[in-house]
Amino acid sequence: MSSTPDSAVRAFIDAHRTAFLDDLSEWLRIPSVSADPARAGDVRRSAEWLAAKLAETGFPVTEIWETGGGATGAPAAPATPGAAPPAPAVFAEWPSGDPDAPTVLVYGHHDVQPAAREDGWATEPFEPVVREGRLFARGAADDKGQVFFHTLGVRAHLAATGRTAPAVNIKLLIEGEEESGSPHFAALIAERADRLACDAVIVSDTGMWSEDTPTVCTGMRGLADCQIDLRGPDQDIHSGSFGGAVPNPATEAARLAAALHDDDRRVAIPGFYDGVVELTDRERELFAELPFDEETWLRTAHAHATLGEEGYTTLERIWARPTAEVNGIGGGYQGPGGKTIVPSTAQLKLSFRLVAGMETEKVQQAVRDWVAERLPAGIRHEITFWGATRPCLTPLDHPALQSVVRAMGRAFGQEIRFTREGGSGPAADLADVLDAPVLFLGISVPSDGWHAPNEKVELDLLMKGVETAAYLWGDLAEHGPIT
Amino acid sequence: MSSTPDSAVRAFIDAHRTAFLDDLSEWLRIPSVSADPARAGDVRRSAEWLAAKLAETGFPVTEIWETGGGATGAPAAPATPGAAPPAPAVFAEWPSGDPDAPTVLVYGHHDVQPAAREDGWATEPFEPVVREGRLFARGAADDKGQVFFHTLGVRAHLAATGRTAPAVNIKLLIEGEEESGSPHFAALIAERADRLACDAVIVSDTGMWSEDTPTVCTGMRGLADCQIDLRGPDQDIHSGSFGGAVPNPATEAARLAAALHDDDRRVAIPGFYDGVVELTDRERELFAELPFDEETWLRTAHAHATLGEEGYTTLERIWARPTAEVNGIGGGYQGPGGKTIVPSTAQLKLSFRLVAGMETEKVQQAVRDWVAERLPAGIRHEITFWGATRPCLTPLDHPALQSVVRAMGRAFGQEIRFTREGGSGPAADLADVLDAPVLFLGISVPSDGWHAPNEKVELDLLMKGVETAAYLWGDLAEHGPIT
Repeated sequence: MSSTPDSAVRAFIDAHRTAFLDDLSEWLRIPSVSADPARAGDVRRSAEWLAAKLAETGFPVTEIWETGGGATGAPAAPATPGAAPPAPAVFAEWPSGDPDAPTVLVYGHHDVQPAAREDGWATEPFEPVVREGRLFARGAADDKGQVFFHTLGVRAHLAATGRTAPAVNIKLLIEGEEESGSPHFAALIAERADRLACDAVIVSDTGMWSEDTPTVCTGMRGLADCQIDLRGPDQDIHSGSFGGAVPNPATEAARLAAALHDDDRRVAIPGFYDGVVELTDRERELFAELPFDEETWLRTAHAHATLGEEGYTTLERIWARPTAEVNGIGGGYQGPGGKTIVPSTAQLKLSFRLVAGMETEKVQQAVRDWVAERLPAGIRHEITFWGATRPCLTPLDHPALQSVVRAMGRAFGQEIRFTREGGSGPAADLADVLDAPVLFLGISVPSDGWHAPNEKVELDLLMKGVETAAYLWGDLAEHGPIT
Repeated sequence: MSSTPDSAVRAFIDAHRTAFLDDLSEWLRIPSVSADPARAGDVRRSAEWLAAKLAETGFPVTEIWETGGGATGAPAAPATPGAAPPAPAVFAEWPSGDPDAPTVLVYGHHDVQPAAREDGWATEPFEPVVREGRLFARGAADDKGQVFFHTLGVRAHLAATGRTAPAVNIKLLIEGEEESGSPHFAALIAERADRLACDAVIVSDTGMWSEDTPTVCTGMRGLADCQIDLRGPDQDIHSGSFGGAVPNPATEAARLAAALHDDDRRVAIPGFYDGVVELTDRERELFAELPFDEETWLRTAHAHATLGEEGYTTLERIWARPTAEVNGIGGGYQGPGGKTIVPSTAQLKLSFRLVAGMETEKVQQAVRDWVAERLPAGIRHEITFWGATRPCLTPLDHPALQSVVRAMGRAFGQEIRFTREGGSGPAADLADVLDAPVLFLGISVPSDGWHAPNEKVELDLLMKGVETAAYLWGDLAEHGPIT
């Protein structure tokens, strides 16, 4: 089936597993939280750590790429107060040496979501712990673990084939702002398009259906998220003396958030659904064939009921339908007991998931218009979008997608099925700028707790990821031109 | 006009003004924040300080009254986690010696609203400062300043009349839970009704129209306030993986808060307006005759527009109409930048202002029913009412009200007009249990900043309050039986 002997790959991986996990743990200890300006130094440290590790792996080219218009070596100041500062990406390159070899670009991110012990973590989020075959840490699955399997994967590929350079030209672009909506990513890849030129993008920032049902993802939702700040009275005022006669920004924030959805839980912002690529009957059938059990899914979600857009199943809602979500709301008194005030300010943090056919700029404008129209006199507002990520979708019959399916099939010894990803990554920006198809290679499972307390990665699956990466380069080279 | 020579009263007050203000400042330094369980010790210290000061003033009886079912001298634990702990009241008594003298009960409170420098205070809220004829401190107007003018008032009354005991039997009940909705006050006064028996209640916890337009208040709104805790997923979950398919407690909190009012800003909770005593045409005329200037009022409110129940003027809305207000809302991520989660929990703090004819228990039940009905499956909720305060209203032609108007007229040298108070106090509970009319004697003005940063009292008005208190006892005694 392939020129890479599977047993040699497995033997190499087994021999290097301990060192691989030790290295990954070292990386996970760096709290590279891109949303928190106070963690900017840690995000930079994470990039430097990875660049050094990739050089050690054998990549002849490793570079730190600044973002946000800063000069090399010095990050620019953030444009918006409170917004995450620009964070560096890591670029690495390992040419094949074969002039006919295709070029693949692996995409992932080295930044992570915020995490604090008091959010419900059983152990320190930035102190990795292995328990019952799982590695617990913020970033274990999203996305450091899944970036890192490529380091051992390419070495296994070389060891098993006796090559000194990979069968394809490998490039890696590991960004540092993904968890902040990749505000400078589009500019970065536009600026560096020549260095990033490739025949296919491999995104290692997604998951599989489950431990028992390995799958390949064919598309991701996009994302536009924002903060809306409302100001009413110039200070908190007495609700007895003034309440009922002046606008209350907490009430108005609530009215905005409540008006996001109609009674069918359909997003009620005019123009929001413009251009949405609707599901075909065949896609709905494929979704319906997956072993979906609502009770299990709810357990994984830590939720107690499903609720969403009328007329769609849960899988359709999370994979193929756009959404509006309240990520945070705050205003007025939140301490112990009561305080009878009309608050001065309130704040909403909203995120919108987008599907193929939607344009991020149009969605942002629709939200801006909708907010401006709904607020009464006496409530001033400011709306800040953190950035936007396009949605993307790859055809099921694409040859490079078939290579990924074969490599996974060898690693897992099972039929590989198809899913989509409800989360977002800047994959579609890459596809657009580099004019290359996007493929997804991820081994995370829904119970891994992305963005949640006690995030983990299943060690067995992580090693299958290493193995898949080891097979993939040979398969892609063997099956010729990708496009 | 009266047996108390006005010049003697004024001379006595002038002579004791400095010591009076020093004492008040000492009291204001005690941060008696009843809503904050961490301040329970300070609330107790405030009660003890006042009791000692009243004894020094001459009150032969001064007592600390425990609340909340605790044994005397030891407060009970709070019933609800997060609720304010029971806080002691101060009782004092000074019999007239005249068997025919009426008995008046002065009501006020010694607890204050929360305050922190970072809320926008120009100086420390619990470090009183005099600037340009104003005393700035949390509690300066609400309510320590207005309680305290009775200490110098009764001494001026005695000095000017040559009496050794006041012309009426004076009782004082100064509670410590008013800013927490007086959760144990109804039980306290029911239990101590014999000690509190009186012919009239004088509430010193309200304000006047303005520095130029002294007024007497004829009624207060009631209050019912609560916290609603919503729980969705057991932890914060990824908005890409699960968003759009499970209920979001922040969205549901917003939908509740938004549904409080209809498009005419009328409270939309079924049954809320049951029993409301509507304004008469005469009352609407009296309100309309006051020198109300919306722009000035908005400046005082620190607000930028009016908004409220359709069909009513601003004064009608704040004095004579019930309201629902969002005092606080919180849920999900409120830190810097974005976090793409479906939050696990959200919280609403609501307060309802009630007017004559409304029953607090019925309003609470209406709110409970309404909340329970509106939440979708998968959102669990808990609702906690902090306590409730009844509304009250006194007839304009009541003889004791006329005494208050005369005493104020002498102090201010001006016609006294009539207002109502939008805020709330447990006056109506007193009226109900003690079967006595409620009168209001307050010298605070709207710009005093109750519950807001930089609360202050106008020193000139504070001294007019002392003077009014000095005239009132003689007038009440002279004009015979009150009821």
